Amino acid sequence: MRRPVIALITDFGLHDVYVGVMKGVILGVNPEARIVDVTHSVPRHDVAAGSYALSASLDYFPEGTVFAVVVDPGVGSDRAVICARSEGRYFLAPDNGVLAPVLTGRGYDALVRVEREDLYLRPVSSTFHGRDVFAPVAARLSAGLDIGALGREVSDFVRLDAPEAEAGPEGVKAGVAWVDAFGNVITTCPARLVDAVIGRWGRIAVHGRDASFPLVACYEAVPPGELLAIVGSSGFLEISVREGNAARLLGLGTGDGILLVDGGRM
Amino acid sequence: MRRPVIALITDFGLHDVYVGVMKGVILGVNPEARIVDVTHSVPRHDVAAGSYALSASLDYFPEGTVFAVVVDPGVGSDRAVICARSEGRYFLAPDNGVLAPVLTGRGYDALVRVEREDLYLRPVSSTFHGRDVFAPVAARLSAGLDIGALGREVSDFVRLDAPEAEAGPEGVKAGVAWVDAFGNVITTCPARLVDAVIGRWGRIAVHGRDASFPLVACYEAVPPGELLAIVGSSGFLEISVREGNAARLLGLGTGDGILLVDGGRM
Amino acid sequence: MRRPVIALITDFGLHDVYVGVMKGVILGVNPEARIVDVTHSVPRHDVAAGSYALSASLDYFPEGTVFAVVVDPGVGSDRAVICARSEGRYFLAPDNGVLAPVLTGRGYDALVRVEREDLYLRPVSSTFHGRDVFAPVAARLSAGLDIGALGREVSDFVRLDAPEAEAGPEGVKAGVAWVDAFGNVITTCPARLVDAVIGRWGRIAVHGRDASFPLVACYEAVPPGELLAIVGSSGFLEISVREGNAARLLGLGTGDGILLVDGGRM
Repeated sequence: MRRPVIALITDFGLHDVYVGVMKGVILGVNPEARIVDVTHSVPRHDVAAGSYALSASLDYFPEGTVFAVVVDPGVGSDRAVICARSEGRYFLAPDNGVLAPVLTGRGYDALVRVEREDLYLRPVSSTFHGRDVFAPVAARLSAGLDIGALGREVSDFVRLDAPEAEAGPEGVKAGVAWVDAFGNVITTCPARLVDAVIGRWGRIAVHGRDASFPLVACYEAVPPGELLAIVGSSGFLEISVREGNAARLLGLGTGDGILLVDGGRM
Repeated sequence: MRRPVIALITDFGLHDVYVGVMKGVILGVNPEARIVDVTHSVPRHDVAAGSYALSASLDYFPEGTVFAVVVDPGVGSDRAVICARSEGRYFLAPDNGVLAPVLTGRGYDALVRVEREDLYLRPVSSTFHGRDVFAPVAARLSAGLDIGALGREVSDFVRLDAPEAEAGPEGVKAGVAWVDAFGNVITTCPARLVDAVIGRWGRIAVHGRDASFPLVACYEAVPPGELLAIVGSSGFLEISVREGNAARLLGLGTGDGILLVDGGRM
Repeated sequence: MRRPVIALITDFGLHDVYVGVMKGVILGVNPEARIVDVTHSVPRHDVAAGSYALSASLDYFPEGTVFAVVVDPGVGSDRAVICARSEGRYFLAPDNGVLAPVLTGRGYDALVRVEREDLYLRPVSSTFHGRDVFAPVAARLSAGLDIGALGREVSDFVRLDAPEAEAGPEGVKAGVAWVDAFGNVITTCPARLVDAVIGRWGRIAVHGRDASFPLVACYEAVPPGELLAIVGSSGFLEISVREGNAARLLGLGTGDGILLVDGGRM
């Protein structure tokens, strides 16, 4: 099967040579690979945020895409590397929870612990497995190597520390999955839980913040500078300020826990 | 005809997954597309700056290139999407003026209103047409779809609010098209209007700023730290500080209006 | 021979259209080129840092790769452009020292002064040779043009101002080659000189800084927040803070000179 696309998600940033070096390694193994940067701005070592970046993007990539998710606070330790196949896409990452939401939510038809050291760049450094492990293995997969050739099948994987959003009597306990460059606060609250928080006035609030805002269908529903909640393009509740920065206004950052509550009457 | 290159200009930045997602969509439709990031640092919703980024880059791309210019403050409203063909290149953008300088300056041999909803990702979100509309349509164009298949021909398009530079008795009324990462101030004053402002001493000034500087042919013509004016690589007057930051020194930013005047004698 | 990969190292940043324009020019000449961004964040005009970015990345790119290194404070002056072939890879850059460490360290089997103005974009601007000179020449090389066709052979090249690291009685005189986005301080001290500085307690210090730190094999060898020295993934001594920012803690930046000394007993 054709698997030309390799999609990269890392916390390396674009300032240094690290991502470029990974691409050099990939093209040395598979000159036909088409490499796409999903994002390299995952906050450093933030496994939950890396997981969000994957969830928010994977549906938009073609079947056969190989995702290499290198958010790896345990690099150099004995944490495992795993690879899964789900709905025709491949997911290669440290076994630290970064793949857990995808594997739990969608299931998988293959899951292996990667142990083919002969595929790695040697010697393997203790600090840069993106180059020495993930790049060459992703390139082999994209060149057609069978996932079963990467190592033995395993039956479980590490879960994320961060709990999933859940509705309770007080509201929806959720988290901030990502703050984007515009200051939009993307929560972990999925569309299906919004009913559990919104009251008869159609407004939402973040517990502890002195602000209540309407759930709307498009930004233009509020005046410039006003807060709003919207089910964003990735299916989760987002809090925004029209033509402004909601994260700064509410003092929220990636990884924060929040309690979403009925915003009452304006 | 071969049209493998898709050139992207957006205000999305590279921090988030948005640009990567657009590329995933493109490669799903046309695996052979060659995607080039022109810039994703257009100031948010700044249609005139997006227009400048296009003007400054398009001549350097091969015939057949499809430019997708996604600077789209009206996303989710009823603003139209248009596509033009000019000198063998394709331009796909919201009809908000971002294409106007190119279409006015160069003409076009086809201009359509894009209305082929069957080509879009469904459902179309209200916030991310880069993914749902522009990416799949650009990919189809690059795969060979005829521009006439995108929708009905139209005879006009929205103009930019920002006026073109013009010479008057007081000097040249112009604007700041772009401030680059080095602090160079790229004005909207084209080379042909420079004669209208420069006096016998070969110097220029910005009205209201206490500084006058020479028009030079290369940076080395002034000492380090000094202001200069130069006709830049894109054919417009630029104001720079040799080894310094002119935008900061003069307090100018993208979108500012300026009056360029004779700089007098030093 | 196949030479599809063009690797770009510049100080242009990604904010502006400059890098995108170079890619447009390249794809116009060689539509099959595979362009990789190594980094565009070389500090402006910092030839030694550009040289480091090249040294740290080149081994990871396939044979036949064409490196275009555009860190060019002398653009528009009469500085030469050179091209070398070394171990099957091609290096195209201004003759300002940026290639010197690679050519000195590895030798080369061809070195020419590039003078084929017919290959350049005309007219050649005085400010943007990345677009007008380096992009089209790199594209020709990647399309198979012989290096000998670029100009006459030369027997020497400009050296870097920055001296190589050397061991003396007081310690190892070295420099800061690069500060990465995580604040890791990558020195110019190669692994082979580490013995010259480290004493019996296995610790290193930077002369003039009130801190001593151990040489370790992995970050986990020290507690979070502590300084450490490690031979990094590119073979040079790096100074880091586990889960912190060493550059900020020590007040060091790219290009600084340092004296590495025995760190004594803790």
